[in-house]
Amino acid sequence: MVENASYGIEDELFIRGKVPMTKSEIRAITISKLKLTRESRVLDIGAGTGSISIECGIACDKGRIYSVERNQEGIDLINKNIEKFKLKNIEVIHGTAPEAFKNIKKIERVIIGGSGGKLESIFEWFNDNIQKESIVVANFITIENLYKAVKLFKKYKYKNIEVVQASISKSKNIGDLTMLIGNNPVFIVTGNKK
Amino acid sequence: MVENASYGIEDELFIRGKVPMTKSEIRAITISKLKLTRESRVLDIGAGTGSISIECGIACDKGRIYSVERNQEGIDLINKNIEKFKLKNIEVIHGTAPEAFKNIKKIERVIIGGSGGKLESIFEWFNDNIQKESIVVANFITIENLYKAVKLFKKYKYKNIEVVQASISKSKNIGDLTMLIGNNPVFIVTGNKK
Amino acid sequence: MVENASYGIEDELFIRGKVPMTKSEIRAITISKLKLTRESRVLDIGAGTGSISIECGIACDKGRIYSVERNQEGIDLINKNIEKFKLKNIEVIHGTAPEAFKNIKKIERVIIGGSGGKLESIFEWFNDNIQKESIVVANFITIENLYKAVKLFKKYKYKNIEVVQASISKSKNIGDLTMLIGNNPVFIVTGNKK
Amino acid sequence: MVENASYGIEDELFIRGKVPMTKSEIRAITISKLKLTRESRVLDIGAGTGSISIECGIACDKGRIYSVERNQEGIDLINKNIEKFKLKNIEVIHGTAPEAFKNIKKIERVIIGGSGGKLESIFEWFNDNIQKESIVVANFITIENLYKAVKLFKKYKYKNIEVVQASISKSKNIGDLTMLIGNNPVFIVTGNKK
Repeated sequence: MVENASYGIEDELFIRGKVPMTKSEIRAITISKLKLTRESRVLDIGAGTGSISIECGIACDKGRIYSVERNQEGIDLINKNIEKFKLKNIEVIHGTAPEAFKNIKKIERVIIGGSGGKLESIFEWFNDNIQKESIVVANFITIENLYKAVKLFKKYKYKNIEVVQASISKSKNIGDLTMLIGNNPVFIVTGNKK
Repeated sequence: MVENASYGIEDELFIRGKVPMTKSEIRAITISKLKLTRESRVLDIGAGTGSISIECGIACDKGRIYSVERNQEGIDLINKNIEKFKLKNIEVIHGTAPEAFKNIKKIERVIIGGSGGKLESIFEWFNDNIQKESIVVANFITIENLYKAVKLFKKYKYKNIEVVQASISKSKNIGDLTMLIGNNPVFIVTGNKK
Repeated sequence: MVENASYGIEDELFIRGKVPMTKSEIRAITISKLKLTRESRVLDIGAGTGSISIECGIACDKGRIYSVERNQEGIDLINKNIEKFKLKNIEVIHGTAPEAFKNIKKIERVIIGGSGGKLESIFEWFNDNIQKESIVVANFITIENLYKAVKLFKKYKYKNIEVVQASISKSKNIGDLTMLIGNNPVFIVTGNKK
Repeated sequence: MVENASYGIEDELFIRGKVPMTKSEIRAITISKLKLTRESRVLDIGAGTGSISIECGIACDKGRIYSVERNQEGIDLINKNIEKFKLKNIEVIHGTAPEAFKNIKKIERVIIGGSGGKLESIFEWFNDNIQKESIVVANFITIENLYKAVKLFKKYKYKNIEVVQASISKSKNIGDLTMLIGNNPVFIVTGNKK
């Protein structure tokens, strides 16, 4: 395994515990939608194990990442992963969206990995607080949250709203043969704040 | 559109002509499998429009990218894209694999986007020429080339051979409604040279 | 081609015009969800070319199929297909749901292929008019109609509500090679009326 | 559940044990490709639990189904399912393909659910034994068997060779939300014997 990759970190390199983690292929698509620059200021909502925050932290070496997570188990994992990857530009915030955002300023990129049912108030906060032209990328596994997100992207007049559904299958060997194992499909919704 | 993104360039930013281009989501997964470092030396075989070479060139700012393409139309597009993205670390080689590789040394990462039916001799060349532990990532859209690639990865005793199939659907608006349009599935095969 | 198949009719055997037709694989899954018996009384809403009505008509040789379609072009195609397949148990109704249903009684199976934006009033009509334990199967290509349908199935307390997403790819030959062409994914929602 | 459906039997209605069973959606597509008539004579190779044989037995009430299975556990399940569905037109054969076929004559439709690694000799047997214009439908989950099957369909000059890949996701409720769970993709290869 490549420990110092700057683009694409293997799932196995993250300290994970039992917190569900976005799989590497979905992470790669999600981050590619963010159009990060080395200076980007990023908000990662529902950061989970911090896998996306870590990859953003590496990509945005002159920027800043805010990782918000409401579960203590997640917070511990994010901190362990930050230490493992020796990153100085990630700030971990234990709290619930959008209250936890109150000291965060000048955000240009947002990932929503989990919304804790607060999608509406999160978008309201974006409206008042994140930069014009910010890129928001949200991952969903349920039909209802996907629907609500699309409505909110439209309500707040985001531009270039795009829904991508990614269905990834991965090989498993059975003897000499190569079987494909289906992952659960993930919806990736992207929009630019006006 | 973000012109200076360091990770994830929109399809529309590339100069394309009529040469088929790997779509952004497949490009993101493919590049994430390469585990690039800023110093990586990369060989892009069947570079097409150069979209993958360009993204690698940005990610590996202290490394070197060799873009091999057999069609003149592709060569012209790669050169135009290199100029557009102002990259100094990409060498374009007009020729057929594996003959075109003869002056390329110390490769650590390989992308196979097109093999021109020479998969067998390409893998033979890898065996003698690319670095130990090199990562090879190949994209296929046909069952037959997928099968042959898996056999070659095994024949040359690559480690961690993995096949990923990515089926991507993308939204299209019909009035107020959001329809999903299916892209063709792509197989992404990865392995580490022993 | 098999002209007298009792299960599985090829797309090419239907008279089609320019009306979009549910592809054979989606048709097969959809009809299999209906759990038809030879006596079933079926309502096909948004019948399009009539392809599903025709397959139901063959399967339910002692039953009755009501095909409702609002476009004249569709009506003509359904009538031509009924004639081609020599079926006596299909009644074609030109009109808009749910007004067009007023003389239809004792329905046990329903397919919703198109709702003309009237999903809410269609489910209301079901509530008062179709048999207890009726099976309703609906096909959707948009996120919004999928979401609304799931809400309506729940609102009217259907049992065994199931959403299936089917992503079908089909081969195309390029020379000696077999490429896979992705179709648009379709959502198939099923429920049993209480 | 509908116990007397003539088209589309729920997975739960089959007696299953621990033998893997083709899921209902794949079964529906597979059987639809067979273009069964009520008189069809069908060979089901690698019949497993007999789920496909049973559905064919119901559809071909004036025809005959031969279910070949090499494992005793499968044989027992097929027999139990035949009894449960009260079918008289299914003959169960315990043995290995193609030796087990020796007394089977005038086959017009074939399903290959499992080949026990004998795909080559199975196709050879077809060449000498099944009817002209027979329809052969084969299900595969591995890349290697898919590849071999496509080669054999071509070698024996089958017409209308088609590969369909079906990726099915099915809903699971998490509280009030509807998540999609991905099944493993299945390849369905169809051809008409010349």
